[in-house]
Amino acid sequence: MEELVIYLPLVLAALGFVFMLTKKSWVMKQDAGDGKMKEIADHIYEGALAFLKAEYKLLSIFVIVVAILLGVVSVIVPTTNWMILIAFVFGALFSAYAGNIGMKIATQTNVRTTQAAKTSLPKALKVSFGGGTVMGLGVAVLAVLGLTLFFILFFQLFMNGVWAPAEFAGVMKTPGELMTIVLETLAGFSLGAESIALFARVGGGIYTKAADVGADLVGKVEAGIPEDDPRNPATIADNVGDNVGDVAGMGADLFGSYVATVLAAMVLGNYVIRDMGGDIVAQGFGGIGPILLPMSIAGVGIIISVIGTLLVKISSNDAKEAQVMGALNIGNWTSIILVALSCFGLCYWLLPETMTMNFYGEGAMTISWLNVFYATLVGLVVGAVISSVTEYYTGLGKKPILKIVQQSSTGAGTNIIAGLATGMISTFPSVILFAGAIWASYAFAGFYGVALAASAMMATTAMQLAIDAFGPISDNAGGIAEMSEQEPIVRERTDILDSVGNTTAATGKGFAIASAALTSLALFAAYVTFTGIDGINIFKAPVLAMLFIGGMVPVVFSALAMNAVGKAAMEMVEEVRRQFREIPGIMEGTGKPQYDKCVDISTKASLKEMMLPGVLTIGFPLVIAFVPMIFGMNALAIAEMLGGYMAGVTVSGVLWAIFQNNAGGAWDNAKKSFEAGVMINGEMTYKGSDAHKAAVTGDTVGDPFKDTSGPSMNILIKLTCLIGLVIAPILGSHSEETPETAVPVTMEIESPQELETAQNEDLLVSCDAGLYYFKPINEVEQNTRPLAAR
Amino acid sequence: MEELVIYLPLVLAALGFVFMLTKKSWVMKQDAGDGKMKEIADHIYEGALAFLKAEYKLLSIFVIVVAILLGVVSVIVPTTNWMILIAFVFGALFSAYAGNIGMKIATQTNVRTTQAAKTSLPKALKVSFGGGTVMGLGVAVLAVLGLTLFFILFFQLFMNGVWAPAEFAGVMKTPGELMTIVLETLAGFSLGAESIALFARVGGGIYTKAADVGADLVGKVEAGIPEDDPRNPATIADNVGDNVGDVAGMGADLFGSYVATVLAAMVLGNYVIRDMGGDIVAQGFGGIGPILLPMSIAGVGIIISVIGTLLVKISSNDAKEAQVMGALNIGNWTSIILVALSCFGLCYWLLPETMTMNFYGEGAMTISWLNVFYATLVGLVVGAVISSVTEYYTGLGKKPILKIVQQSSTGAGTNIIAGLATGMISTFPSVILFAGAIWASYAFAGFYGVALAASAMMATTAMQLAIDAFGPISDNAGGIAEMSEQEPIVRERTDILDSVGNTTAATGKGFAIASAALTSLALFAAYVTFTGIDGINIFKAPVLAMLFIGGMVPVVFSALAMNAVGKAAMEMVEEVRRQFREIPGIMEGTGKPQYDKCVDISTKASLKEMMLPGVLTIGFPLVIAFVPMIFGMNALAIAEMLGGYMAGVTVSGVLWAIFQNNAGGAWDNAKKSFEAGVMINGEMTYKGSDAHKAAVTGDTVGDPFKDTSGPSMNILIKLTCLIGLVIAPILGSHSEETPETAVPVTMEIESPQELETAQNEDLLVSCDAGLYYFKPINEVEQNTRPLAAR
Repeated sequence: MEELVIYLPLVLAALGFVFMLTKKSWVMKQDAGDGKMKEIADHIYEGALAFLKAEYKLLSIFVIVVAILLGVVSVIVPTTNWMILIAFVFGALFSAYAGNIGMKIATQTNVRTTQAAKTSLPKALKVSFGGGTVMGLGVAVLAVLGLTLFFILFFQLFMNGVWAPAEFAGVMKTPGELMTIVLETLAGFSLGAESIALFARVGGGIYTKAADVGADLVGKVEAGIPEDDPRNPATIADNVGDNVGDVAGMGADLFGSYVATVLAAMVLGNYVIRDMGGDIVAQGFGGIGPILLPMSIAGVGIIISVIGTLLVKISSNDAKEAQVMGALNIGNWTSIILVALSCFGLCYWLLPETMTMNFYGEGAMTISWLNVFYATLVGLVVGAVISSVTEYYTGLGKKPILKIVQQSSTGAGTNIIAGLATGMISTFPSVILFAGAIWASYAFAGFYGVALAASAMMATTAMQLAIDAFGPISDNAGGIAEMSEQEPIVRERTDILDSVGNTTAATGKGFAIASAALTSLALFAAYVTFTGIDGINIFKAPVLAMLFIGGMVPVVFSALAMNAVGKAAMEMVEEVRRQFREIPGIMEGTGKPQYDKCVDISTKASLKEMMLPGVLTIGFPLVIAFVPMIFGMNALAIAEMLGGYMAGVTVSGVLWAIFQNNAGGAWDNAKKSFEAGVMINGEMTYKGSDAHKAAVTGDTVGDPFKDTSGPSMNILIKLTCLIGLVIAPILGSHSEETPETAVPVTMEIESPQELETAQNEDLLVSCDAGLYYFKPINEVEQNTRPLAAR
Repeated sequence: MEELVIYLPLVLAALGFVFMLTKKSWVMKQDAGDGKMKEIADHIYEGALAFLKAEYKLLSIFVIVVAILLGVVSVIVPTTNWMILIAFVFGALFSAYAGNIGMKIATQTNVRTTQAAKTSLPKALKVSFGGGTVMGLGVAVLAVLGLTLFFILFFQLFMNGVWAPAEFAGVMKTPGELMTIVLETLAGFSLGAESIALFARVGGGIYTKAADVGADLVGKVEAGIPEDDPRNPATIADNVGDNVGDVAGMGADLFGSYVATVLAAMVLGNYVIRDMGGDIVAQGFGGIGPILLPMSIAGVGIIISVIGTLLVKISSNDAKEAQVMGALNIGNWTSIILVALSCFGLCYWLLPETMTMNFYGEGAMTISWLNVFYATLVGLVVGAVISSVTEYYTGLGKKPILKIVQQSSTGAGTNIIAGLATGMISTFPSVILFAGAIWASYAFAGFYGVALAASAMMATTAMQLAIDAFGPISDNAGGIAEMSEQEPIVRERTDILDSVGNTTAATGKGFAIASAALTSLALFAAYVTFTGIDGINIFKAPVLAMLFIGGMVPVVFSALAMNAVGKAAMEMVEEVRRQFREIPGIMEGTGKPQYDKCVDISTKASLKEMMLPGVLTIGFPLVIAFVPMIFGMNALAIAEMLGGYMAGVTVSGVLWAIFQNNAGGAWDNAKKSFEAGVMINGEMTYKGSDAHKAAVTGDTVGDPFKDTSGPSMNILIKLTCLIGLVIAPILGSHSEETPETAVPVTMEIESPQELETAQNEDLLVSCDAGLYYFKPINEVEQNTRPLAAR
């Protein structure tokens, strides 16, 4: 009976799926308006589909190429299985499908929200948040579904669904080794998901800003028509961009984090079993309780998110931002508390009462199930606190924003300096928080604790995404209301939702960074354990050199992404100019602009421009792994170097993510402060003032920071660590053949005693024609035997 | 006879000192002009002295406090000696004296250069470069003199000047252990030098920009008087600032690097001797050849720099920038080649023919003296290449600058984005270069090789500083020519020198970053070896957490420095406004502005504002080291954490140094490009255009980047690693008392065999009342016994 718990996440995900479908059909049944309103919405919807079509066309080539490469590798390397190819393709498909669901529902909910806002604010919230819920659940359900399905499949295929020794590729393997192969193959699913996320996040980030700048430069500046004017061929691309960046990009990002976190926790769960002697079947759950735990938390998190979303509602039509924010908070906090409670239950249920875990350099320790629960609490706290930190540094009316506003009065230069400084300072509390979280969750339950902290934090992903996605939906709804000239009350209502959405967008970015950071650390830990290296020692110069290179990559990546926005925007500008020139009657409103051409240009340009950063992301770890291998370098040494690279990318990437996101967010809200008017040196200052112009300049700089390069950091660090994880078995497998420190020593063995003495000091690996190969005994894997057994 | 080689650096430094005095007296004998010229020059000279006076007053308090703290620690911790206090004070004094020499000569050479430019360009170059030579030699001579004197003193005191076991603090010690104490005490000298550098570089950086902004805002904008107008009370502070930042700041920076590099190489040289069995007296040079090598290279470097400076001359009065640059290049390249040759000779002479070195994880290797020479070549190549890289990203007429100029046409926002992206991209070649240098020099000769690469690079410090300091001298000379209304030909001649100076300033910054990076790595390696930890394993979560925190510190430090400029500038603005208001006849030129008040305000403000970043720099490593110690954490675990922190600071600090310096330099030259006119979209664009205004905004942002926060990174990373090195004996000494992984295991020992079995697996540390303390055998220090000996 207990063995059936493996199917629990599937059942929960299925329940979530049913709820999602119900919600979706409810949203779709809402009135979609008519006339101009509908026309505009249709253009956005078509544009979004056009982007998806173009993106998927390009991605299918990428997926096929990588799948072939994976297939070749799996044939060459004996410890990898060709099924990783299947897992990869399905990871990509699931991620793409999740993006599709999110994008479609977002672009269909916007106009329905506008229509609902005609009736009442509670109705408008219900519709827009309903759309967000569909998006959030779509991502979470597909993640859990895909991961669980493939886990069960590989578990059956390689282990016949039981924890017992079996033959694999003609060699008898222990169940722990077999599970490693299961999870290594499952890593393909995560790699597929994260690869798509790279395109969605980076491409989407370039897209949204290219369209924004292109539309503004030609439309507002050159042609002198207002923003969001339907005569501007790029205006639809601009609106599509909001969805592409904020909805699809964020969704793909969190889909990738979700899958990778659970996977990493499963890998580390397998090593918990190893540390306990390799067999805990007596503990129930088929002996894989620690592996099932993260999946179960993810599954339960879906149901909890459903409950959370049901609590988000307001009753009064006169509600303001505070009430709407309060409703979201009730749903969010309820979810978090429920996750905490269920983590308590699941840890108690699925884990042995005490576990033996190995801590590098500290030996084996006895860890109670309660410690693991405490680690999950750490994750939940990080998720909540990082949102507050982000809110403080980027929130309207907060001290940092007021300072930037003040500095705007002395020009764009001082505004920029203040914004940069704000973003830089904001790394202080964020990094202290992350460092504390790493330390605490590790102290509670080792790297398994770190991974479970991440899993617990990610359990509310569906809820987080619902809160996050309702923002751009409301933003679009407001735009549609404006363009279709609705009564002022409609715009007022959508404005309330939009304003709340701005806040949740900032905190959502904080959540995404935190999830990426913890996920990467969990992947990093899984990588080290996979390769079997004795930690990552930066006192080895090659490892230190790679730490430097890893630290540099996020910086260069950001620069490339920022330059890409510039280039893509110029292509857009030329296309808009061409249409204004060549389409007769376009300015009079009689000629229809070719929106899809603009969308196409923007899509192609963004996908083209993200190639170089993409190549950098994927190429660097491959070069580090395989070039030294060609030169005959030892695989374990390479594995350690690659680990140094991963650490460099993660540390630097997290810093640059926080810096860029918060600086960008701060500039944005400093500019927005002028809309309501701000007090500078005792004088009320409004839009159109010199100070406001300086703030607009700051926002221009902040746009690619917060919407392109900043969010891309998340994917960069996760994908880097995932590629490492997928390469790990290749590096690890070599290690068994050539022990790193086997030093050939010619000895004249004159007596058995002498040989014994030598063997006592170093481990005799082999001997051949008078040459004795020794491996220093301190290289032998540490503490494989729990001390308690002694 | 061979033992006398220890005095070689002293003799060479003394020779350099004599040459410096000759040069100084020659410069001082030059005509210092008269009238207005002299008056302006005197103001600058007085201002510089006022800054030095105020700075030294504040610093003396700091030095006394730290000296007392060091004294207390040396009493408590048995392995440290109270002489570290003396070394620290003298390190601070020498650094201050070097700053004094540089500042005085620079502020006295400027007007003499103006006067010489009346005669001819070759004469002007001779005078200005003569001043730079005095400054450069002053720094190098004092560094070598101080370091060598104190080494000889401690060598005599603790070891009686011979490599033999002796008693220390009542305990018999091996010569290697005694030498460790000598070098640990010598680290105090380096700490003193680098502490002063912190104030000089950060305070100077804040000073120069605060005075600049303050003078411009009230003078140019509010009062409408031209730049450098003597009626502006802040104009002298502005000119003083150039000397404080570019001359004294750079000098203190390189003084610190010079001392720290040689020290770190000496520490690692001591471990080379240890790895060779602890006694190489048979090899000559009193058995300390590998320790003497870096000192000797530094000493010889002084003479080589003298030769190099003698080659810098032009003959034609019609020479242009290219000829002046060529003259500098001849001197520079000759120095580099001579250093390479002398490294060959010194390595051959001072080192054993082959050495045994331990490589972490790779065991012992046999290294020939030639390998060490190759490592020094790596350092020389890095020094040369980094200058070209910096020159490419910040040089007038180069592609990145042209791109920023183009982007200025669409406004300040795009100019800023382009500048940021340029700075960010520039980390790519720089970091690849550093990573390659670390790898290569380590592959040649371990961390001793890395330290010697740094030593070789730093050998030409005197020459580098001469080239670097002549820039601001010529800049000041041009300003004096302008203000005292000399004939146009005078200004033309100084302009040629100034223009070349701008280029050398940029490349000098690259050299300073490279020196800081290599120095930090050498210190880092010395730290690890000092503490006796088994490397720094970032797979331990607390170490990883510290890597994150270390990575964050340079970012927050930069933000604080940037904010400090803003605050200090505002204080300056208020003082200038007050003088304009209160001093009668100031605007008519009849009332004399109180220049020293302004200088005082600016000095105090800058020194006050640099406190917080200073506290951050010094406080963080102390907190990491001592807070866990209070909570009873194991000293070796703390040492590893602190190492993680140091690595984080170094990696992140180098990245942010490159990013900020190059972005700032690029913006500066993009702005300067408009002076000669630039082609934008087929149109010549000049000063005063909108594009130029956008470029000015970029330069405003770039100013604190390149002159305050960017250069401060050098000191931050070096001082962090130095503090670690000084704390090292405290952490290391504890380690002998409580082995980190001694795990108490209760065993029932029923037979001697059982005990033997247990002992074979783990190392029995002690036993007490049935409790057996084991230290896992793989924690025993690796490879202390060279494999070759077997």
